[in-house]
Amino acid sequence: MSHTKIWKIYLSGEIHTDWRKQIADGVERAGLSVELMAPVTDHNASDNCGIDALGLEGNSFWEDHKSAKINAIRTRAMIVKADVVVVRFGPNYRQWNAAFDAGFAAALGKSIVTLHDTDLDHALKEVNAAALASTREPDQVVRILQYVITQG
Amino acid sequence: MSHTKIWKIYLSGEIHTDWRKQIADGVERAGLSVELMAPVTDHNASDNCGIDALGLEGNSFWEDHKSAKINAIRTRAMIVKADVVVVRFGPNYRQWNAAFDAGFAAALGKSIVTLHDTDLDHALKEVNAAALASTREPDQVVRILQYVITQG
Amino acid sequence: MSHTKIWKIYLSGEIHTDWRKQIADGVERAGLSVELMAPVTDHNASDNCGIDALGLEGNSFWEDHKSAKINAIRTRAMIVKADVVVVRFGPNYRQWNAAFDAGFAAALGKSIVTLHDTDLDHALKEVNAAALASTREPDQVVRILQYVITQG
Amino acid sequence: MSHTKIWKIYLSGEIHTDWRKQIADGVERAGLSVELMAPVTDHNASDNCGIDALGLEGNSFWEDHKSAKINAIRTRAMIVKADVVVVRFGPNYRQWNAAFDAGFAAALGKSIVTLHDTDLDHALKEVNAAALASTREPDQVVRILQYVITQG
Amino acid sequence: MSHTKIWKIYLSGEIHTDWRKQIADGVERAGLSVELMAPVTDHNASDNCGIDALGLEGNSFWEDHKSAKINAIRTRAMIVKADVVVVRFGPNYRQWNAAFDAGFAAALGKSIVTLHDTDLDHALKEVNAAALASTREPDQVVRILQYVITQG
Amino acid sequence: MSHTKIWKIYLSGEIHTDWRKQIADGVERAGLSVELMAPVTDHNASDNCGIDALGLEGNSFWEDHKSAKINAIRTRAMIVKADVVVVRFGPNYRQWNAAFDAGFAAALGKSIVTLHDTDLDHALKEVNAAALASTREPDQVVRILQYVITQG
Amino acid sequence: MSHTKIWKIYLSGEIHTDWRKQIADGVERAGLSVELMAPVTDHNASDNCGIDALGLEGNSFWEDHKSAKINAIRTRAMIVKADVVVVRFGPNYRQWNAAFDAGFAAALGKSIVTLHDTDLDHALKEVNAAALASTREPDQVVRILQYVITQG
Amino acid sequence: MSHTKIWKIYLSGEIHTDWRKQIADGVERAGLSVELMAPVTDHNASDNCGIDALGLEGNSFWEDHKSAKINAIRTRAMIVKADVVVVRFGPNYRQWNAAFDAGFAAALGKSIVTLHDTDLDHALKEVNAAALASTREPDQVVRILQYVITQG
Repeated sequence: MSHTKIWKIYLSGEIHTDWRKQIADGVERAGLSVELMAPVTDHNASDNCGIDALGLEGNSFWEDHKSAKINAIRTRAMIVKADVVVVRFGPNYRQWNAAFDAGFAAALGKSIVTLHDTDLDHALKEVNAAALASTREPDQVVRILQYVITQG
Repeated sequence: MSHTKIWKIYLSGEIHTDWRKQIADGVERAGLSVELMAPVTDHNASDNCGIDALGLEGNSFWEDHKSAKINAIRTRAMIVKADVVVVRFGPNYRQWNAAFDAGFAAALGKSIVTLHDTDLDHALKEVNAAALASTREPDQVVRILQYVITQG
Repeated sequence: MSHTKIWKIYLSGEIHTDWRKQIADGVERAGLSVELMAPVTDHNASDNCGIDALGLEGNSFWEDHKSAKINAIRTRAMIVKADVVVVRFGPNYRQWNAAFDAGFAAALGKSIVTLHDTDLDHALKEVNAAALASTREPDQVVRILQYVITQG
Repeated sequence: MSHTKIWKIYLSGEIHTDWRKQIADGVERAGLSVELMAPVTDHNASDNCGIDALGLEGNSFWEDHKSAKINAIRTRAMIVKADVVVVRFGPNYRQWNAAFDAGFAAALGKSIVTLHDTDLDHALKEVNAAALASTREPDQVVRILQYVITQG
Repeated sequence: MSHTKIWKIYLSGEIHTDWRKQIADGVERAGLSVELMAPVTDHNASDNCGIDALGLEGNSFWEDHKSAKINAIRTRAMIVKADVVVVRFGPNYRQWNAAFDAGFAAALGKSIVTLHDTDLDHALKEVNAAALASTREPDQVVRILQYVITQG
Repeated sequence: MSHTKIWKIYLSGEIHTDWRKQIADGVERAGLSVELMAPVTDHNASDNCGIDALGLEGNSFWEDHKSAKINAIRTRAMIVKADVVVVRFGPNYRQWNAAFDAGFAAALGKSIVTLHDTDLDHALKEVNAAALASTREPDQVVRILQYVITQG
Repeated sequence: MSHTKIWKIYLSGEIHTDWRKQIADGVERAGLSVELMAPVTDHNASDNCGIDALGLEGNSFWEDHKSAKINAIRTRAMIVKADVVVVRFGPNYRQWNAAFDAGFAAALGKSIVTLHDTDLDHALKEVNAAALASTREPDQVVRILQYVITQG
Repeated sequence: MSHTKIWKIYLSGEIHTDWRKQIADGVERAGLSVELMAPVTDHNASDNCGIDALGLEGNSFWEDHKSAKINAIRTRAMIVKADVVVVRFGPNYRQWNAAFDAGFAAALGKSIVTLHDTDLDHALKEVNAAALASTREPDQVVRILQYVITQG
């Protein structure tokens, strides 16, 4: 067998902890053939990209709108390319963008892996119903990728 | 012109206020040719449909899982048929299922209309970036449907 | 709300017990707005449709081939139209056609409900991984359809 | 002509004989430009990947469920990429996952090649009806690939 | 033969002459089984639907944006349903929305018929390259529909 | 079971014998729930529809081009709607339009039934490779439709 | 993170100013990993490619038709591959091909960025309704690409 | 601009003249970045691949069937990958496989270029109606590819 495939993994969701780095470190340690993709994780840059590139509006709705759409250029291109979409929900904030990404990925038939604590289980039951794995720790994501990519 | 088309509208999201009834009353008053669809809005029935039909698990994760998947049978069939998906976010709860529905609808190219208060604008900017209208009141949804369906 | 939708349900798999009739009786008792579809369930007719319509081959492989393809005209048209595909596995026979239908339905994004005894759980784990509900009795299928169709 | 295309071949089904190795050896001897892909073929690893990565459930149904879904991450990504899906049915076991893969591949329009003994012909007639070749020996698969890839 | 099909025709483009009425009169005289669809053709209503339903912005860009998106709810639903998209270009105005509709329809594989004077031939060559007929008069559109729908 | 489905059958190909009428008579006698569709079968009308609707060109290539494209409006709409595409090849003429229709239908996943004499078997082997049945007589098509539609 | 992705950007529209060069210079200065694609921007070559390759017609409609179709070979292949489609509208000419490209890209779910002066805002409101960013200067396009590609 | 794209060109149809070599020589002389693909052009190998790999049937229909299906593995994979499908019709033989390929390519939205003499114009009008260029000489195909690939 000659599995030369590079797996494309999109890491969606929470931007306030280092879970992406933990997964990146884990897949590097495991020597996995992956390309990790992510949204812009600099909160200020992400919120302000619309006014940075396109100017002020004097109206937070449309300023947010412009930023969200520019971020969508990145997000959708990456989800469309991804083999696996990992969606992380943290304990704080609404994180509707993460759930939106999960729905978008589900409709495209992408494999979804969720990452969240047990106290969010009930609130995330619809997202988990569309997922192929529900994890609690970044290391579990790494173990799943390692199994999926290198076994055989 | 002979617009005999029946518009199919899926009303996703919040189940704790009467916004669906307000829209239903409004489209009836306006005499619009629509079929309104909705998820099961009885909270207990929705939470328990898995154990009601398939039995207890002694484990809330899998009980939720079974319920969420049965609800998905309904939800996805309706979103797939819909011309317009209205997504309502209320002031309480996580409502990740609503954002998931919005993402799912967006990937299918459905027209999305959101319905929420201004204090959720920033948190919903990614969902609004994929919507064709952002409304504050059920009556605005009715007015949009009336314009879209009956003008011309 | 005015849910006038007729749900289209394809009943795939085992043809040696009366599970389809049990579901048909159940949905009729419940007054559900469904159209039930099924493959040809007359075993001899199904096996011989190729030679009946197109003549003998003197070779069982190609006679089977002709029958299987004629049956596929029916099967695929019905799966393509279906909102829900119920797949029944009985205790006997290989039933690879049922698993094939399930895979076909899964790739089209159809909602799948399986119906089989617990002793087949391990062998059917891949099919159940793609299903939105795993049932043991026809009555459970009816209850799920009743919930999905009439609640709300 | 400059056929630099690397053909992607997914080898689905039976894991108890060395048919994949025979095909791998054959395509190597023939110098074919192929990438062979396969599910995880270590039976224990495949059965236990769910509990290995995600923990015990104390319930074989959900333990199987978790494993089957993790395996699906691999399986579907590979079928989606494949030009040709070879599906092997051996004399033992139910092998519903193989028939499920065949149905999934058929709905995506993939070219399917089956590999099985003649005594399974009747039971596999629906799968063969969707296949572009029905073979008996791994060497026949190699010969077909050699013809398809290198002629011209 | 029993052609009971109702042909769905979307009439896109110019709103300042009575070409839609001429086609409607023509298909009625010919007794054709068609459903004619059109964008909102009341210029003021179309321009103002955004502020009418959703309020003023004090900024013409976003006011236009809101109107254009509400109109898109109608336009896209109708193009998606259409068998044939007729696109009319008049002598005045930019009419980029008409060319946008034509591109949208082309990507969906819809049959396109253009309707414009010869002096626009060169400027519309890319649109005509994607069309199945280029007409000069509404009556030619009627004749094409009559031939397509009633012959045979 | 309540199979209320109306089967949509497109009858492509030869226009010089009465095979369509034989099928129409047969399905009527059998009381099948079908809608039969066909291209325009009046040879002169079909050849001249371009110049009839759109005027002379003084150049047979472009006159043919205009007619062929108008016919395509009908043909493609009907193939897209069809459950089954029957393709008839007669003994005379090139009939490349029939083979083109078959290829078009195959790419859309439609069920194809061919109808032709044995002396065309070798020349039509690629078309038959994509068909679900190869028939010799219109009555065989009727028998297949009767089996597919009414059994069960 | 290891974002090795090469972003594919199609630059559609106006060919009379150096906006493409400004973007090309900008992305080079920024060291972005992009592949820029464009239609043939030599106006004469583009207008005459039909007669150059396929001969004169003595009829400008069909000469234009042949050129437009040859250009479509290039245009559509590039839009299909593109992650982002930038559409430039200048102050002169009808530019319906640019709006057509935008509609085509929108139906395929591509991310669209428009580039035009404010005096075209009202006429382009439907195109901007489908865009993820509306820019005024090539440098803004570069800044968006830089943000989308390199952040994170 | 940095057009590094390798254009994928599938050369379908006639196998009795050297038109593919003329195109191959032409694109090499022009230094075009293309990958040329073709069916197996050795007539005997193509006709016999079924029995060579899978054995005799004692029945020409099924022997042809097996060969045609093995050839389809190659043909469809190549058409699916192609940017442009060139379809050549020669003066002899039925060549229904070429027309089938054209229909298959058309339904997938591929750019089609035909290559045939003028005396086949009328018989090929439906195929040309789906093509983006109709050529008479291999050199015209080369010139079109050169224009499409290298201009700009």
